[in-house]
Amino acid sequence: MPHTPDALRVLVEEKLERLELWPQLHGQEESVRYSLLAGGKRVRPVICLATAAAAGGELDAAMPAACALELVHTFSLVHDDLPALDDDEERRGQPATWKRYGEAVGILAGDALVAEAFRLATSYETTAVARELAEATLGMIGGQYLDITGTAPDEATLHSLKTGCLFAASVGLGLWAAGVAKAEQAPWRAFGGELGLLFQIVDDILDGDGYVQTHGPAGARRLADEAAERARARLDYIHADTAVLREIVDGLAVRTA
Amino acid sequence: MPHTPDALRVLVEEKLERLELWPQLHGQEESVRYSLLAGGKRVRPVICLATAAAAGGELDAAMPAACALELVHTFSLVHDDLPALDDDEERRGQPATWKRYGEAVGILAGDALVAEAFRLATSYETTAVARELAEATLGMIGGQYLDITGTAPDEATLHSLKTGCLFAASVGLGLWAAGVAKAEQAPWRAFGGELGLLFQIVDDILDGDGYVQTHGPAGARRLADEAAERARARLDYIHADTAVLREIVDGLAVRTA
Repeated sequence: MPHTPDALRVLVEEKLERLELWPQLHGQEESVRYSLLAGGKRVRPVICLATAAAAGGELDAAMPAACALELVHTFSLVHDDLPALDDDEERRGQPATWKRYGEAVGILAGDALVAEAFRLATSYETTAVARELAEATLGMIGGQYLDITGTAPDEATLHSLKTGCLFAASVGLGLWAAGVAKAEQAPWRAFGGELGLLFQIVDDILDGDGYVQTHGPAGARRLADEAAERARARLDYIHADTAVLREIVDGLAVRTA
Repeated sequence: MPHTPDALRVLVEEKLERLELWPQLHGQEESVRYSLLAGGKRVRPVICLATAAAAGGELDAAMPAACALELVHTFSLVHDDLPALDDDEERRGQPATWKRYGEAVGILAGDALVAEAFRLATSYETTAVARELAEATLGMIGGQYLDITGTAPDEATLHSLKTGCLFAASVGLGLWAAGVAKAEQAPWRAFGGELGLLFQIVDDILDGDGYVQTHGPAGARRLADEAAERARARLDYIHADTAVLREIVDGLAVRTA
């Protein structure tokens, strides 16, 4: 009986709580842990673990990759919250990392999260895990640049970078961790390509911005349902038990937080 | 006839000028290139290449690792210059990256440099290159934390983190790139361990701070000469032609810029 998405989330949470950080971080460790354990849905690591499990891999083997994804995601939040970027003083009801520890330590916390992510991602035999994570991180940074400079050619490009890259990598890293050969990855990756957009549209519906502003509430809802439908259709092409991934799609489509 | 340190520096410079950045960085690429091509001695990549060559490796094979080291070094400068950290408006006579492109893009430029560094470092068969780079980056961040919070137990600890980690990794990455087995690396690594301190003391002599303040000008000079002597002594234990590495030590000891 495979783990449910919620059981996977609990596993991730427990692993993050026990995560050993590099000792040379010294006192910098505290703000890294603060940002990492401030809550969150752990969607990306859960997708990574569910993909690895569906592809026949062991959860333990996929855990470093899963955590690395969450660290990169957290890095992006920590730096986005900085005064020079979004200037958010709160994150999930708590002071943002920079607000809690000062701007300098907040910047270093983001830096340390990225470096720790790559330390985790290089615990595999293959460099593919860390390489795909680096590429996704670069895409995310490019998206953040387009966002803050207002130079994105369109909303779809912006979101495919800011959100899509790391969601796609969540599937990709799960495949590498499970030892799926590159030649076998295409149908899985087609699925991964649909997840980011689904997540983003629902995010906008919950926040009342983005796709809601451009397409109206009903239009955004329709787009979300279509994205979920495409994701489910992609799963039909995968010759494996993808029930948990389907459950993740269902959950992303109707989530309320 | 092996390349001199200066010839290696030119090779690095040419490679950095032609470096292909990840296309999804979009406009963020400009500030990354600006920070990367603003000059610099390229000491770390030169050490990496000279180590790889002395260990029997090809320069081309060591070049991604060498560039990755310079990108991580540049990342540290770009973030250190930020208003929240050292608040330096100039770097090598040019506006600091954040001063030229704004604070937000300056933060993202540092982020992109790290991610690009790991993309380069994962172009090897072995994950050892990227892994050692991640560990050195974490040490450097820990050192920066101790520095800005004034919590370093002593000057030696501070410098071994802020400078020593990446110098040691410059030798280490050269060894991995040259395919030197872990069991054969010890004498090389003993050499690498001496380089960071030598560099730091001479830096302080040139700036009139740090070791000059604690040990006086003559005392600091003596410490530098002793560090150089220890580095040369370490080379004597390596069964290879280390003439170029010796030349690097000599250059670091007497540099005036």
